[in-house]
Amino acid sequence: MDVDKYADVHNRYEGLININPLMTGGRIPREVGERLLSKGWLEVGYAICYNCTEGRSDALGFPPVKEFLSDLAEFFGGDVAEHTLGCRAAQFAVFRAAAELDGYAKVAVVDSLCHYTTVIAAELSGLELVEVPNTGHPEYRVQVERFAEKIEEVSRRFGEAPALLALTHVDPYYGNLADVRKVGELAESYGTMFMVNAAYTAGVMPVNMRQMKADFLTVSAHKSMASLAPLGFLVAREERSSAVLKGASTALDWSKRAFPKKMVNLFGCSIGGLPLISAMYSFPLVVERVARWEEELKKTRWFSQEMEKLGGVRQLGEKPHNHHLLHFETDVLWEISKRHKRRGFFLAEDLEKRGIVGVQRGLSRRVKASVYGLSWEEVRRVRDAFRDIVNEYVEKFRIKL
Amino acid sequence: MDVDKYADVHNRYEGLININPLMTGGRIPREVGERLLSKGWLEVGYAICYNCTEGRSDALGFPPVKEFLSDLAEFFGGDVAEHTLGCRAAQFAVFRAAAELDGYAKVAVVDSLCHYTTVIAAELSGLELVEVPNTGHPEYRVQVERFAEKIEEVSRRFGEAPALLALTHVDPYYGNLADVRKVGELAESYGTMFMVNAAYTAGVMPVNMRQMKADFLTVSAHKSMASLAPLGFLVAREERSSAVLKGASTALDWSKRAFPKKMVNLFGCSIGGLPLISAMYSFPLVVERVARWEEELKKTRWFSQEMEKLGGVRQLGEKPHNHHLLHFETDVLWEISKRHKRRGFFLAEDLEKRGIVGVQRGLSRRVKASVYGLSWEEVRRVRDAFRDIVNEYVEKFRIKL
Repeated sequence: MDVDKYADVHNRYEGLININPLMTGGRIPREVGERLLSKGWLEVGYAICYNCTEGRSDALGFPPVKEFLSDLAEFFGGDVAEHTLGCRAAQFAVFRAAAELDGYAKVAVVDSLCHYTTVIAAELSGLELVEVPNTGHPEYRVQVERFAEKIEEVSRRFGEAPALLALTHVDPYYGNLADVRKVGELAESYGTMFMVNAAYTAGVMPVNMRQMKADFLTVSAHKSMASLAPLGFLVAREERSSAVLKGASTALDWSKRAFPKKMVNLFGCSIGGLPLISAMYSFPLVVERVARWEEELKKTRWFSQEMEKLGGVRQLGEKPHNHHLLHFETDVLWEISKRHKRRGFFLAEDLEKRGIVGVQRGLSRRVKASVYGLSWEEVRRVRDAFRDIVNEYVEKFRIKL
Repeated sequence: MDVDKYADVHNRYEGLININPLMTGGRIPREVGERLLSKGWLEVGYAICYNCTEGRSDALGFPPVKEFLSDLAEFFGGDVAEHTLGCRAAQFAVFRAAAELDGYAKVAVVDSLCHYTTVIAAELSGLELVEVPNTGHPEYRVQVERFAEKIEEVSRRFGEAPALLALTHVDPYYGNLADVRKVGELAESYGTMFMVNAAYTAGVMPVNMRQMKADFLTVSAHKSMASLAPLGFLVAREERSSAVLKGASTALDWSKRAFPKKMVNLFGCSIGGLPLISAMYSFPLVVERVARWEEELKKTRWFSQEMEKLGGVRQLGEKPHNHHLLHFETDVLWEISKRHKRRGFFLAEDLEKRGIVGVQRGLSRRVKASVYGLSWEEVRRVRDAFRDIVNEYVEKFRIKL
C-alpha cells in the first residue's frame, strides 16, 4: 500500500473559470482561504471546540457561533438557526420531526423538482412523498396552485392531512423560482408544517422566510454561502422549532445516562469545524452580494440569450430566468458528439483547454451552467468559448442547423 | 446587524499545547494545512466534485477518493470503506440497517460507556438500547463477558435476538480499551451484526476489524485521523455491507424519479469536501504514527504516574492505561477551587497562562487530559504546569493532602 501519493494531490482545476451551478455559489474568496490558515483555524479538526462547556457547538461564545447563528437567522427572516451537517441533514431533521407529529398522515407533499436529498430525508423518516406536478418540457414550472389539490387527496386517502409541505425555492434541475408564498399561505390555512429548501438561493439572492410564510428554511453553505463543505443551516420560526430542535429522550437502562441537551434530530451537535469558520468569514461578503443580485441576474440572462444565438441551443425553464442555474437543451452539441471521436466528452475537454471547467463530463445533449459571480469579462470568455467550439465543429462536420 | 466582525475571528489558542483528548488525535500538521491552501483546495466548497459523473463522491477517480477508501479499508482490516458526515453518521447508517433486519428484535446491546452519538443513532433508528454494565468506580471496566447474558435477556424478552451488538473500542469517559474480540466471537456465534466504534482509536493505535471479528468499524477522522471536521468513515466487511450501503428505494409517484445509486443510509453522497482532502494528506502520517503507538503509550503512562505523584490525584480507568485519554479524579484541585475566587475556572485559566489549553473550563473535580502526539519536552511542560499550579495553591491555601 503506497500511501505517500495521497500527501499532496493538487487541485488541477484551481484558478480555472468554474461554471458548475453547484459550485459557483460556494466559491471561496482567496482572502477567506488565506485567513483560515493565517488565523490559526487549520490547526486541529475540532478547532472551534476549545471553549465548549455545553457539549453543543451552537452555544459557543468563542468563536462567536451563537451570535453568528442569531444574525444568520435574522438575515433569512427566521427566529432561530442551527448549523447542520449539510442541507441534507437540515431537511432530515424537519422530516423526522414531521414523521413524529400526532394527528397527521405520514406523508409530505413536495414539488416534483425537489432535490434527491429531500427524497432521502423522507425515506429515512418513514414519510411517503406525494408530488405536485410541473408543466414539463420546456418550462417545467412547478404547479404550486395544485398543492391544495394534493393536500385534499392525501386527506381523503389517509384520513388525515399531510404532516409536511416541502417546496424547493429554486430547483436543481432547471433553476426555476417557485412561488413559495402561495404555498406558505396554504400551509398556514391548513395548519401544516411548511419547509422551504433554499439550497440554491439562500446566500445568493434575497430570501426571507417570514415573507414566504415558511416554518423552516434549509440552507446549503457550500452551495450558496461561499463556504467549505460540508455545512448547512436550518433556520426556523419560533412557533414550530421545538419539535425539530428537541433533545434526545433515551434514558439508558443500566447507567441511567440521558442526553437531553443533545438535539437528537441534528445528531446531538453538528460540530461545525472549519466549514463553519469559513461561513463566518464569508458572511459579510454574502450579505453584500445578495444585495447585488439584480446585477448577477443580468449576466445570467445575457449569457442565456447569447447561448441561444449559437443556434441549436435552447434554454429550458423560466424565461426570462430568475436564477443563475441555467439548463440548456443543446441539439447542436449532441450532433457534434455523434461525430466527434471523444463523443460527449469533447465539450468538457474543449472548454478546459480554454480555461473553463464545470460542465458535466460526457454530457452534450443537455448542459447546465452558471455564470454567477463571474466578472463581465469572464462571462464573455465563457460565451466566446462555447461559440468558438460550436463554430469550429459545425464547420468541420458540416452540421446543418 | 454588524457582520464585518465575523470576517477575521482569530483562533486565540493557536500554537498552545493542546491536551484536550478529543483534539489531540485530530491535530493537523502545519504542512498539511499549508498544502490545503497551496494545492488549491480552498477554492470552492465542493472542491472535490469537479470530476463527478456518478453523483457519488466515493466513486471519484480524481481526487483519488475511490482508491483512498480502498486503501483505508485495507488499513483497518476491512473490505470496503465509505467516508461519512462524521462518525455519528457512520453509526447511524449501521443502526438504521439493523433496525430494518427481519427476524431480530429492534434492540441493540451496547456497552455502558458508549458515546452519546451511539445513543442518538439508536433513537433515530427506533432501536431500543440494552446496556452491558461496567465495574464502576474506580476502574469502570466494561464487562464484555456479560454480553452473552444480555443477548439471552433480550431474546427472552422480545422472542428474538438483538439486531445489533455495538461496542466502543476505547470509551470517551475513561479511555478504557475493551476486549473487542471476545464480543466479536460471540456475535459470530449468534449471527448478530457487530459494530465497533473506533472513534478514539482508529488512526492513533493499531486497529484491525478482521481480528476483532467486527462487521462494521466506525471512525472519526477529526478525532483520530489528523483531519478537519466534520469527517468520519464507515468500514465494513463484505458479507454484511450491502444492508447498510444500499441505494434509496423510493419511487416518486408523479415524476417517476428514483435514486438507486444514492446510498440512503449515508444521505446519498457524503460530500467529503476539504475534510476528506485533509484526511488524504494526513494518511501517510497516520499510518506512520500508528506504528509508533507504543512510544505514545509510554508518554501517557509516565504522565499519569507523574500526576498521581502530585498528591490528591488519582487516575481512573485501566492501570496501566492503554489509551491516551486520561481521566483523573483531582481532589486537590477541587479543594483549591473551593477557596479560589475563580472557582473551578482557575485550572483552565492558570494552565492557559502557561501556554496549555484543553481542560474543560470550570471543571476541577475531575480532569480529562491527553498528551498524545506531544514531544517529551512538551509532556514535561504539561506535568510541570500542573505541579506548579498545585504547589502554589496548596501552599497559599494551606491545604492538607
